[in-house]
Amino acid sequence: MRRFVVGRGRRLINHSHHYQNQKHHSHNHLLSSHYHSRFLSSTPVLDSPSSMAPNTSPPVTIDNLNPKVLKCEYAVRGEIVTLAQGLQQELQTNPGKYSFDEILYCNIGNPQSLGQQPITFFREVLALCDHPSILDRSETQALFSADSIERAWQILDQIPGRATGAYSHSQGIKGLRETIAAGIEARDGFPADPNDLFLTDGASPAVHMMMQLLTRSESDGILCPIPQYPLYSASIALHGGTLVPYYLDEATGWGLEISDLKKQLEDAKAKGVTVRALVVINPGNPTGQVLSEENQREIVEFCKQEGLVLLADEVYQENVYVPEKKFHSFKKIARSMGYGEKDISLVSFQSVSKGYYGECGKRGGYMEVTGFSPVVREQIYKVASVNLCANISGQILASLVMSPPKVGDESYESYCAERDGILSSLARRARTLEDAFNSLEGITCNKAEGAMYLFPRIHLPEKAIKAAEAEKSAPDAFYCRRLLNATGIVLVPGSGFGQVPGTWHFRCTILPQEDKIPAVVSRLTDFHKSFMDQFCD
Amino acid sequence: MRRFVVGRGRRLINHSHHYQNQKHHSHNHLLSSHYHSRFLSSTPVLDSPSSMAPNTSPPVTIDNLNPKVLKCEYAVRGEIVTLAQGLQQELQTNPGKYSFDEILYCNIGNPQSLGQQPITFFREVLALCDHPSILDRSETQALFSADSIERAWQILDQIPGRATGAYSHSQGIKGLRETIAAGIEARDGFPADPNDLFLTDGASPAVHMMMQLLTRSESDGILCPIPQYPLYSASIALHGGTLVPYYLDEATGWGLEISDLKKQLEDAKAKGVTVRALVVINPGNPTGQVLSEENQREIVEFCKQEGLVLLADEVYQENVYVPEKKFHSFKKIARSMGYGEKDISLVSFQSVSKGYYGECGKRGGYMEVTGFSPVVREQIYKVASVNLCANISGQILASLVMSPPKVGDESYESYCAERDGILSSLARRARTLEDAFNSLEGITCNKAEGAMYLFPRIHLPEKAIKAAEAEKSAPDAFYCRRLLNATGIVLVPGSGFGQVPGTWHFRCTILPQEDKIPAVVSRLTDFHKSFMDQFCD
Repeated sequence: MRRFVVGRGRRLINHSHHYQNQKHHSHNHLLSSHYHSRFLSSTPVLDSPSSMAPNTSPPVTIDNLNPKVLKCEYAVRGEIVTLAQGLQQELQTNPGKYSFDEILYCNIGNPQSLGQQPITFFREVLALCDHPSILDRSETQALFSADSIERAWQILDQIPGRATGAYSHSQGIKGLRETIAAGIEARDGFPADPNDLFLTDGASPAVHMMMQLLTRSESDGILCPIPQYPLYSASIALHGGTLVPYYLDEATGWGLEISDLKKQLEDAKAKGVTVRALVVINPGNPTGQVLSEENQREIVEFCKQEGLVLLADEVYQENVYVPEKKFHSFKKIARSMGYGEKDISLVSFQSVSKGYYGECGKRGGYMEVTGFSPVVREQIYKVASVNLCANISGQILASLVMSPPKVGDESYESYCAERDGILSSLARRARTLEDAFNSLEGITCNKAEGAMYLFPRIHLPEKAIKAAEAEKSAPDAFYCRRLLNATGIVLVPGSGFGQVPGTWHFRCTILPQEDKIPAVVSRLTDFHKSFMDQFCD
Repeated sequence: MRRFVVGRGRRLINHSHHYQNQKHHSHNHLLSSHYHSRFLSSTPVLDSPSSMAPNTSPPVTIDNLNPKVLKCEYAVRGEIVTLAQGLQQELQTNPGKYSFDEILYCNIGNPQSLGQQPITFFREVLALCDHPSILDRSETQALFSADSIERAWQILDQIPGRATGAYSHSQGIKGLRETIAAGIEARDGFPADPNDLFLTDGASPAVHMMMQLLTRSESDGILCPIPQYPLYSASIALHGGTLVPYYLDEATGWGLEISDLKKQLEDAKAKGVTVRALVVINPGNPTGQVLSEENQREIVEFCKQEGLVLLADEVYQENVYVPEKKFHSFKKIARSMGYGEKDISLVSFQSVSKGYYGECGKRGGYMEVTGFSPVVREQIYKVASVNLCANISGQILASLVMSPPKVGDESYESYCAERDGILSSLARRARTLEDAFNSLEGITCNKAEGAMYLFPRIHLPEKAIKAAEAEKSAPDAFYCRRLLNATGIVLVPGSGFGQVPGTWHFRCTILPQEDKIPAVVSRLTDFHKSFMDQFCD
């Protein structure tokens, strides 16, 4: 029988997210000294750079750059992905070298990179807005749907001078914000104000903007779920704040326990950290759970009681795969509890990159900012204005996503077919992968209720943990590296998201196209069996 | 005879950029207390937010947000622009209220907002890449030029899976970077490496990325020209560094004196500031000068000697209007001096927003990063990866701008006609406005050699300075506000860019369409005369 050594793992690496930073630093210093020895050559280093002899030390080294940059980690595009990109190049020049013929990127929620097709109507409108001079041509009527042409005209009329090539208002084009606000109202059944919307180049810059606003020093903390999407830890690190973790409970399907939130908040306060905000990702990333309404109400109440800003990552709002769960925005929940502008400060993040649309490359998104005073809002506007505006195509797409074709529109049926085809296929893929993981020895996987990911737990044998230790690698990264080299499948180690110390996981997207899923499953299964055979006593 | 009171102005406001911050803070506190009194109402403030009674103080106030955000200023979209937006709305509801019927935004380099048309070929390619499924249709051949169709195919073939909706490599799509590198080589006559390019959503995020990398604390300084484009002061403030000013010499056409650079560097060192980089904007913003080759060589030598990163803002590289000047990239200058990778750390910023293309809304751009060690480059890549990638349309446009149609291409002639039409018109507009300003009493204006701006100096009468003082306004902001209210013309006060203390300027773009220039000139002239009549003894 196989022995699993969770206890040993815990002793070995006390906090997986701390571990990563340590590893990173030693790696940097190693490379840094290599660099010095290569560049400084025989010229002596000068004490005064103002002397007449040229200064030959490079102005920027790993030792004198912003330590916040060094501290920041983003595993979704980290070491394993860099290795995968190297393998991909090798496959091109030497196709027979490996037992697989392509790299399958299951590391990142990037649907169109794996073959998902864009929604036709959205692309028609974008193309017409990019080149409006064809709108009046007869050939255009043959090439484009009637409602896409009509929508393009509507959008152009909302843009001053129909100038899709101009900077817009720094919060985004007013008319598009009105469309989005109407979409939010239709979704929630509560009013939305276009002036509360800040259109951004995807959700990431919006998250950065809020972290920048909230973080004065490392004494300011942000409550984040563990596991979390590493944008949050990266952004907090870059802005010099403190991530205050709260653990999602794997045993109850990644449940969020208010008692744990309270405990972590009190612990942080005792350490002198002022907790400013709570991040909730719903549906969950990397964990895929969908919060219950009751749980959401508790969270709203908690933020209100504790005076925390609620930062609601709601980018997977269209990605719910189980009939018993439904997405509810936190704003809807708060309003339905009778809490208005004066009761709770709430920011909702949305993106065109996720949902059934999956338009990652367009970098569109918005945040809805409610419950902040006018003077604070003015500061958010100022920061937005320094970057001028979000890209206009992304702005247009954000409006389309929140206001897709309606009954009676020429594109309505094809739009529904495309949307439902993608969503039902994602649900099937989630289920198939979940079952596959659960069938493997030493792996347990919670239900993927939503989002685009599974986050299975892997009970690694002691021998594997020792082998990882010998390679100075986190055990889950060790597993993912081996998997990549054996199968071409790219996963992200759980240590990149944070996990209960001594437990190991990985994140796997449900995004490979359906005809590839059987191959993914069989490659994963074969690899896992041979890995366990190798490392179990 | 009129008396100009430069001395008095200097005594009144010692440093115009300090002045702005002070003004801003007092303004904030004013609004802040107003906000408190409105929201806190009769409920007592609770000491412990953990008590069971709800916490009614808003979590974020002007007093507890990141002070770096408060400190940051961006006058290009500041107070005057907010006033102008208000006027514009009033004009819509009450058209007869003012003596003008439209707001003329001369505050920002946003050509298409003032009627400049996009380059047709660029928009054709963008539209086809947005909706590639029409590429094979016969109607497309009638609607689009043959070379735009061909280029769209080429670009799609450079994108893995032809997925324009996927996140790309965090530095940008490899094939597009190769195209851009080839364009740089053709421009400079020196090699360029696609791996040195980081494609970004416009130049602003690239500047932020470098400031983030270089700034550890307020003891790190960045040498910036005064006057400067306020992105730099804003970014330095947001990242908590110190702006080390060097003054451009208005008397010699905004010349850059190495002796002043050295003096400012030594002063900063004496104050304990570690100067890390030198920002040079060429062609100049807001000052419009084009540096001579000789001056550029001196700057390169200075950075090399002093061990400074040279941050070269070269976004106006296509905007040169005088035959005696030519744009040379700093990389070309450094390489022509025999300085390679190991000799100087150099970052060049380019954008699709400027030039003859003026595609501000597309948010495309890149930075070329040379002379940094691999480990430092790895850190830049990591920061880029946290935001995943720049928007793909912007990436495509950046490649088009650096590789426009060539002799023999179907679009070549129309492309040249569009480009030359825009550039020659810009040159005429620059000249007309320059002459107009110089014809006004108390205004002197240097030649607009390049970029999109004039930065005239205004010698304000003592009475006007007093009147501004009474309104707690900087005198140049006072002038610009009056101008706006009288004419609808939006300028940016010189205090938003920095200027020699006691001198006053404003920035005016050369971007109103040519048929509007006579009206701009006559409105400016009439206003200025009546202003001087009112305020001169």
